[in-house]
Amino acid sequence: MSLADIPHAPPRKPTRQIRVGTVAVGGGAPVSVQTMTKTDTRDVQATLSQIREVAALGCDIVRLAVIDEAAARALADICRESPLPVVADIHFDHRLALAAIGSGVDGLRINPGNIGGLNRVREVVAAASERGLPIRIGVNAGSLEKEVEARHGRTAEALVESALGHVAILEGLGFHEIKISVKASDVAMTISAYRLLAERTDYPLHLGVTEAGTLTAGTVRSSVAMGILLSEGIGDTIRVSLTDTPAREVRVGLEILRSLGLRPPGSSVISCPTCGRVQVPVIETAARVEEELDRYYSQNPAAPRPRVAVMGCMVNGPGEARDADIALAGGAGKFALYERGRHVATVPQAEAVSALMERVRNWR
Amino acid sequence: MSLADIPHAPPRKPTRQIRVGTVAVGGGAPVSVQTMTKTDTRDVQATLSQIREVAALGCDIVRLAVIDEAAARALADICRESPLPVVADIHFDHRLALAAIGSGVDGLRINPGNIGGLNRVREVVAAASERGLPIRIGVNAGSLEKEVEARHGRTAEALVESALGHVAILEGLGFHEIKISVKASDVAMTISAYRLLAERTDYPLHLGVTEAGTLTAGTVRSSVAMGILLSEGIGDTIRVSLTDTPAREVRVGLEILRSLGLRPPGSSVISCPTCGRVQVPVIETAARVEEELDRYYSQNPAAPRPRVAVMGCMVNGPGEARDADIALAGGAGKFALYERGRHVATVPQAEAVSALMERVRNWR
Repeated sequence: MSLADIPHAPPRKPTRQIRVGTVAVGGGAPVSVQTMTKTDTRDVQATLSQIREVAALGCDIVRLAVIDEAAARALADICRESPLPVVADIHFDHRLALAAIGSGVDGLRINPGNIGGLNRVREVVAAASERGLPIRIGVNAGSLEKEVEARHGRTAEALVESALGHVAILEGLGFHEIKISVKASDVAMTISAYRLLAERTDYPLHLGVTEAGTLTAGTVRSSVAMGILLSEGIGDTIRVSLTDTPAREVRVGLEILRSLGLRPPGSSVISCPTCGRVQVPVIETAARVEEELDRYYSQNPAAPRPRVAVMGCMVNGPGEARDADIALAGGAGKFALYERGRHVATVPQAEAVSALMERVRNWR
Repeated sequence: MSLADIPHAPPRKPTRQIRVGTVAVGGGAPVSVQTMTKTDTRDVQATLSQIREVAALGCDIVRLAVIDEAAARALADICRESPLPVVADIHFDHRLALAAIGSGVDGLRINPGNIGGLNRVREVVAAASERGLPIRIGVNAGSLEKEVEARHGRTAEALVESALGHVAILEGLGFHEIKISVKASDVAMTISAYRLLAERTDYPLHLGVTEAGTLTAGTVRSSVAMGILLSEGIGDTIRVSLTDTPAREVRVGLEILRSLGLRPPGSSVISCPTCGRVQVPVIETAARVEEELDRYYSQNPAAPRPRVAVMGCMVNGPGEARDADIALAGGAGKFALYERGRHVATVPQAEAVSALMERVRNWR
């Protein structure tokens, strides 16, 4: 397949547009990728270092847990230096929300029904409005209101009713800079909840599977749920939750978008699974090529990104290799190097990665 | 969510049923998981060891590349000992197909249009029929016939036309024990091709994204493509291709099916992504729990499998933990242990994994 054949990305369901700092969400904006720092927010340097790492990978928005006043104050230093818009994640305590707004965050995640009455909500909304900040309402299956759960059980309907209840509180105060998430750890319930929500509201939606699990399980569950929803046009910003690093969450989130044509191709390579035919170390070669590409693009983010393939054998290898812009296809202890579909060199396996990288660096 | 709330798996599109050894494919059979060995098939012990490893993980069918006569002969020893049905993967050479059948394989993957004329196809079909073996027709975007590609370009239509051309050859010889795959490395093209194929045929379909890439990229692409297709009822058996080990391919394949309710839950845990709130080592704890569960179930495959969760904090933790059968929810340096939604103990973090595993071993 040539790049020109990549089918168009699925059309997006129309939603309102809000802004999280410099990043537009909804209303036709590109689907953005979020993560959450896993450092203690009070440790400004550790937190900034994690933010910079995910920013270099292509993350668009970062969220931080604000557990106390010290964390809310630390946000001032973090927001000043952060290369990404910062969202403060707050539960129950409206004073932390006010302090975070004072520290210069670009958005809040807070559920207005849980902060102790309308007067407190009014204070938070007034402060957010003054700064033009959006609020994400984030309902999780694990923390539904008791009365909603009593009425609907722990179901997709309950998630949506809970979310729309919080929305009604903000709308009652004339506030509409809202995005919404309804996350469950069960993939089918997550999909049902977002489909239902997308029918009932045009606020932009933040997709996620909560408590998705460890690297493999979490990647699969997030990819299946978000892949299905995004392919239906549902979802304006995404966060992959993994019991792993923020960098992994961002890589997976970006790959989900790329797989659907919602982001341009990155530095990931097309590579074959290897089998009993292979006479070259494909797994190691593909992994080394990805590492080299990652390093190269993190140092040269604006460099052109040719489509790169690493193939083991002569069955599908040459065909797939011809489709990539630059490719290696393995033979007996050697690789054939292709550029724009033309066989340009045969290189010993020890030189294959550097020969490919030289072509990448000279790609125009 | 309680287990009783797990929504029903998506209904399957009706297909004919074939058998690969003891495993039924299509026609309402459970969706099966396949992988391919990555050893040299001529190395019988290494290949058997890889087959036993994936069988213990839950793989249903294994495929082996047959590149020469020595590999075809080695199949005799492999088939005799293999705990899983064995499919021989053959390209171009009908003599290897005949030799593999003679060695006792349970199925073939071969494209009859590529083996040099109808007489050779007739020989292979006669031998397969005599043993009651199915044939998978496997078309890849990287190895389309020139004339099909000239007519359609490298498109979903071309993949389907090529596959149905091979099918017509077998049907012309009265052979119908067929399954079909139409794989591309592009997710959108893969989805389009299988949707088209599912409209035009009722043979069972083998899903896959070819050249899916390294662990993260390949897991995401396979999960998105197969998640979307399986949720539409398309797909009777799946193979995840990764530039990684067969064991990883099987784990990802099983997780895709589990995420859609097409397999019972496995040993993977529900676990939270951790954030600035966490005061216990959740990533390490969840990974250790998964390892311990893997070890336990590989030694006790028939043991009951409670739903296990590892949560970091007190925001969603207790709620999600109550939904699991057995769960840990973190506090300050300690974990609360839940069983059937009841708080049963508080344990220091050093003892959390063993306390949880004891509950798993005693689960009835």
